[in-house]
Amino acid sequence: MREIKRFLIIGGDKRQMYLAYYLLSMGYKAELFGFELLEGCDDIRCSCTELKKAVESAQVIILPLPASMDGQKINSPYGKTKETLEKLSDCLDRDQFVFAGMMSNAWKSNFFKKGIQVYDYFEREELAVMNAIPTSQGVIKIAIDNLPITLHNSKCLITGYGRTAKVLAKMLSAMGALVTISARKCSDLAWANAEGYRSVYLKDLHNNDNNFDILVNTVPTLVVDERILATLNPDCLIVDISSSPYGIDFEAAESLGLKFIIAGSLPGKVAPKTSGEIIGEAIINTIKEGSE
Amino acid sequence: MREIKRFLIIGGDKRQMYLAYYLLSMGYKAELFGFELLEGCDDIRCSCTELKKAVESAQVIILPLPASMDGQKINSPYGKTKETLEKLSDCLDRDQFVFAGMMSNAWKSNFFKKGIQVYDYFEREELAVMNAIPTSQGVIKIAIDNLPITLHNSKCLITGYGRTAKVLAKMLSAMGALVTISARKCSDLAWANAEGYRSVYLKDLHNNDNNFDILVNTVPTLVVDERILATLNPDCLIVDISSSPYGIDFEAAESLGLKFIIAGSLPGKVAPKTSGEIIGEAIINTIKEGSE
Amino acid sequence: MREIKRFLIIGGDKRQMYLAYYLLSMGYKAELFGFELLEGCDDIRCSCTELKKAVESAQVIILPLPASMDGQKINSPYGKTKETLEKLSDCLDRDQFVFAGMMSNAWKSNFFKKGIQVYDYFEREELAVMNAIPTSQGVIKIAIDNLPITLHNSKCLITGYGRTAKVLAKMLSAMGALVTISARKCSDLAWANAEGYRSVYLKDLHNNDNNFDILVNTVPTLVVDERILATLNPDCLIVDISSSPYGIDFEAAESLGLKFIIAGSLPGKVAPKTSGEIIGEAIINTIKEGSE
Amino acid sequence: MREIKRFLIIGGDKRQMYLAYYLLSMGYKAELFGFELLEGCDDIRCSCTELKKAVESAQVIILPLPASMDGQKINSPYGKTKETLEKLSDCLDRDQFVFAGMMSNAWKSNFFKKGIQVYDYFEREELAVMNAIPTSQGVIKIAIDNLPITLHNSKCLITGYGRTAKVLAKMLSAMGALVTISARKCSDLAWANAEGYRSVYLKDLHNNDNNFDILVNTVPTLVVDERILATLNPDCLIVDISSSPYGIDFEAAESLGLKFIIAGSLPGKVAPKTSGEIIGEAIINTIKEGSE
Repeated sequence: MREIKRFLIIGGDKRQMYLAYYLLSMGYKAELFGFELLEGCDDIRCSCTELKKAVESAQVIILPLPASMDGQKINSPYGKTKETLEKLSDCLDRDQFVFAGMMSNAWKSNFFKKGIQVYDYFEREELAVMNAIPTSQGVIKIAIDNLPITLHNSKCLITGYGRTAKVLAKMLSAMGALVTISARKCSDLAWANAEGYRSVYLKDLHNNDNNFDILVNTVPTLVVDERILATLNPDCLIVDISSSPYGIDFEAAESLGLKFIIAGSLPGKVAPKTSGEIIGEAIINTIKEGSE
Repeated sequence: MREIKRFLIIGGDKRQMYLAYYLLSMGYKAELFGFELLEGCDDIRCSCTELKKAVESAQVIILPLPASMDGQKINSPYGKTKETLEKLSDCLDRDQFVFAGMMSNAWKSNFFKKGIQVYDYFEREELAVMNAIPTSQGVIKIAIDNLPITLHNSKCLITGYGRTAKVLAKMLSAMGALVTISARKCSDLAWANAEGYRSVYLKDLHNNDNNFDILVNTVPTLVVDERILATLNPDCLIVDISSSPYGIDFEAAESLGLKFIIAGSLPGKVAPKTSGEIIGEAIINTIKEGSE
Repeated sequence: MREIKRFLIIGGDKRQMYLAYYLLSMGYKAELFGFELLEGCDDIRCSCTELKKAVESAQVIILPLPASMDGQKINSPYGKTKETLEKLSDCLDRDQFVFAGMMSNAWKSNFFKKGIQVYDYFEREELAVMNAIPTSQGVIKIAIDNLPITLHNSKCLITGYGRTAKVLAKMLSAMGALVTISARKCSDLAWANAEGYRSVYLKDLHNNDNNFDILVNTVPTLVVDERILATLNPDCLIVDISSSPYGIDFEAAESLGLKFIIAGSLPGKVAPKTSGEIIGEAIINTIKEGSE
Repeated sequence: MREIKRFLIIGGDKRQMYLAYYLLSMGYKAELFGFELLEGCDDIRCSCTELKKAVESAQVIILPLPASMDGQKINSPYGKTKETLEKLSDCLDRDQFVFAGMMSNAWKSNFFKKGIQVYDYFEREELAVMNAIPTSQGVIKIAIDNLPITLHNSKCLITGYGRTAKVLAKMLSAMGALVTISARKCSDLAWANAEGYRSVYLKDLHNNDNNFDILVNTVPTLVVDERILATLNPDCLIVDISSSPYGIDFEAAESLGLKFIIAGSLPGKVAPKTSGEIIGEAIINTIKEGSE
């Protein structure tokens, strides 16, 4: 990848604004397009109002996370008008790069066909790791806001033991919570034990003493079924931070009268600046690797 | 202290409701008086609506924290009518006990004169220690709600190094924050270093590189003056969790355009159940010690 | 795997003795063979002195870790006589199982050919995870024994960020050390940062400010070359806990006058009881999985 | 206190050698007297062999910790000849200062009478706090050396909850141990709970389920009596790090066949360099405070 200097950020939320400032602080040029409705970023708004003009001088176009909600329009909550991916692809040349988050494979290949390289920063391992931090902090906030007790001495169950679960378990434990990990794999339970948590196999969870104050699910497929839900304390707060189709049987939770919260997009809500910087680092890492 | 069994809780917020349930769970009898406007506690409301009748069968009367806001009326946010301390003292007999939080010395001696023993549970060391936990958790919540960055990697300054500061520093550090303690005493700085924090003498703070994301003051006398405030990052969030007359020069902060939050009564807001239980433990400890 | 009840443990060190007691405590039968020279285990020594007789009544034979040092004799430091793998394989029947640690592929297939199933417990992920704990504790001990300073405030570099490195970093950090991780992968550095450590790419390590008090290598291929060694503090203690061919250029370290320690087999030395129990859990897990 | 520049360190162990180097690194002049038998400090040995000459040019004389073992001779394990405190006091002038550790009150007043100011650095709170770190690390080492199990998952009882107990509890817990604190005061137990440890009143300890792997006593008066010892696990390792008359009934422990270790002077043994620097900081703090 040749020397990259000029970025245009099209659409997105506050994270992308902070991403722009981060790129500037790292010595790059960066402008925002589609942020007419967001205050506090006048100095870095692109002066062109027309997409074609705006993209002309940029070497890299950065699309938001996710790039599009409907598969057509670029996800631009702060834009007066919404540009489409179609139009963008028409404006770009083969020596320009696109960085996007969670872009559909269909659109990726559309861009590729025109000779435009697309990098999905959401697929970067380090972004996933770093995003686990604001996500976990968001769960901490949800717990504080919704429990009448302190996290200290509370009994927390986390289902799944991937990246976010690991970071969340550490934070909860550090706040004084008694953490239990429920996962499928023997080695996950060994790790949980090594970290000082209790552990229970997912297959045994319905037989466990489930006297928890909070249950946080991180697995995006049904793991907490009616049988398990029925064993929970009626005051137990349930939070699902996975993604569709989620790991909790929400209908069963509803009919059991359990309180549950489906918490999505926590990084952008909880810490837009840090989240923007995480995206920025992932993009810069990609560029550096491409230059090696 | 003879065998205590029957408590009447007069006034207070949700903490006192949870206190009542806690006392019940420990095998005592407990009723609430002055909670007509609070839902969810019908089963433990005193059936008498007249104060004199209500206190008759109780061995111990528990007043809220603080017992009174104006020095006359019992602090009863959920009561339809507000009873006065005067009236209460007229209703009590010399073999009854009063537990109150932050009661004025004038009122304490009024009760004493009538032969009624008064215990201020707010003066119990273990309550102060345990209250540091919900207080610190409240600060964590304020920080998450008001900062665009994660606590992880954030730079936090705590002025003072008493109980709450110690617990708060530990929680912030556990969330990944880089904690600096500023205090007067050499031994406080030694403790801070032993815990792995940075430290700076209060007298040197105005000369320090004060590039903090958040400053939490715990000292109830002016320590963060204009000279120090002027060295802060303009984005720095200032939180004062001490009590009047507080440790921040708020006027100077205002004129410098710094964002500050005066955060009081965090335990009751953040974790009323835990806070009620902490009061309950302090009361039970006092009774046990009195029986020894 | 049918119902397993009777174990014979042949050879090994104290870990295997504790393994026997662990199996007994879990309700199995277990005897030791080849421990004539070890005190404190008279009650669980096999009464037969002849190998053939001894193995007859066992359903499972457990060999040590490693099973053999020379590829012929069973590794039996506490045995009066050393039996061979050859002889063992002649004594076994096809319905018997062998559990061994780090057995050579050649020997595994020799056993397989006779219809004897061999399980290498050293290949169990959960054993590797759990072994990271005594290994890390061994490094802590080496550091305390060999450094004139406390781990608190010491500057520690760990090369590699696999299982043991993760556990070790956590322990060192908890003791107050300032931990730096050096690894190849971007995502490893992200994890290190998420955990609160500093990080540096292995390829940049020779350009880093390497003012460390201790360097612990966990990578079994040369990563710390002369160029890096030359940048170390002359007092820096170097510990290599990887395995052959190791990650440190020892010759260069020697000629630079650096102090280094090659530390092998830490779990057995530091915590034979825990290590024996870890082996026991891995074996029981394998048996349970085989029965499902 | 006027500008202090020149130190003479008389007697002591390796800590005092490192103290000398520390003072040099801070810009002071420092020489060693009475270290003929210690290698590695030729460059900072005082060139005078006669005490009178040696002390002449020094503004501050630093005596070891403890200053004397027998109340007469200066504690000089590495000195060819042992000078006496008597002789030293004869050599000193009224404008010279003496810093000593644990000097007897009798000797302090002897010096005072001659107009020589004496500061006992062992009485500095910050030294006591910082010394808790190498002491705790020494206990960790003793535990690793003497237990067949890992600290991780071990059950540890600490009696007393002063400075060293607090630091030790934190380290043990960080290594994965399950820590129980036994103390007299209600507020100590509250602190222990706030830190996430279990707790039990000392008066209830004989009735507790004392299934511990290690007991560390920090209280210098009998607290662990025969009644308590009799409830311990026979494998429990007992370590007393308090000072005479100690807190364990050693005779009872002996007759019960319990293994115990009396561990004194851990900082100097475990981390002489850090310990020397801790003394140096305490001395410099004292001088700075005297100049204010």
